[in-house]
Amino acid sequence: MNPLFIPRAIGFVRTPFQQTSEIPKGPGAKHEMDGVLEILPEFEEGLKDIEGFSHLFVIWVFDRSEGYELLGAPPGEAELHGVFATRSPKRPNPIALTVVELLRREGNELHVHGVDMLDGTPILDIKPYMSSIPAEKLKRGWATERY
Amino acid sequence: MNPLFIPRAIGFVRTPFQQTSEIPKGPGAKHEMDGVLEILPEFEEGLKDIEGFSHLFVIWVFDRSEGYELLGAPPGEAELHGVFATRSPKRPNPIALTVVELLRREGNELHVHGVDMLDGTPILDIKPYMSSIPAEKLKRGWATERY
Repeated sequence: MNPLFIPRAIGFVRTPFQQTSEIPKGPGAKHEMDGVLEILPEFEEGLKDIEGFSHLFVIWVFDRSEGYELLGAPPGEAELHGVFATRSPKRPNPIALTVVELLRREGNELHVHGVDMLDGTPILDIKPYMSSIPAEKLKRGWATERY
Repeated sequence: MNPLFIPRAIGFVRTPFQQTSEIPKGPGAKHEMDGVLEILPEFEEGLKDIEGFSHLFVIWVFDRSEGYELLGAPPGEAELHGVFATRSPKRPNPIALTVVELLRREGNELHVHGVDMLDGTPILDIKPYMSSIPAEKLKRGWATERY
């Protein structure tokens, strides 16, 4: 069977986090750190007009996670939940999603607020954040009283 | 160089769309169609407790798109924008992201509202939608007056 596609890094994240233990997790965790999305020069042209957006989706790889678990307990949580109902790194496809605030662009560097990746993490894609679901329409299951 | 990971489908989307021309695009496009995320039986356990969430991120593959363009004009748009400032399917990694509303779960089937995928599209991941950026904090660059 042909693979669906061959993932490649379009760039790497520079963050203050060298160890997963340094990244705030669990109930009430806030991601308040700044970082830099360093896009490879060959993809820089793809950033044209990104400066106009205040927020971006960053799709990246849990490159220091191995294997997956269909059930797991998030940090600070006693009960097991399905992996697709959590943000666990141990997923069938080790793909992560973070919303960051774009502070400024300097050439191939996007300076952003709200990183939760380890330093050196490969980036797969960046997309503009176009619209939000209004908070009053959201139900958040097991996470309701935790985040 | 080792690949970052080998993407695999965790399931497939059933939608009313057989051709890309049937999917609403461009200014004012609304995604109001219902569809089903059919998760493969081997991954069904990973859906535990997903019923509690009203909205989900679906990460999927543009499997009928080929190649990529760093600059392109979105539908109805005259100007070229960088691929990372648009939702174009012609991306270095052909990964797509859609927010859907979860209507109900029936075993390994998630019935959802707001699909914009072609029928048969492979799904890479599902994540719970935990929080929104308030609309008044969003800047949406070239898309400001279009969507």
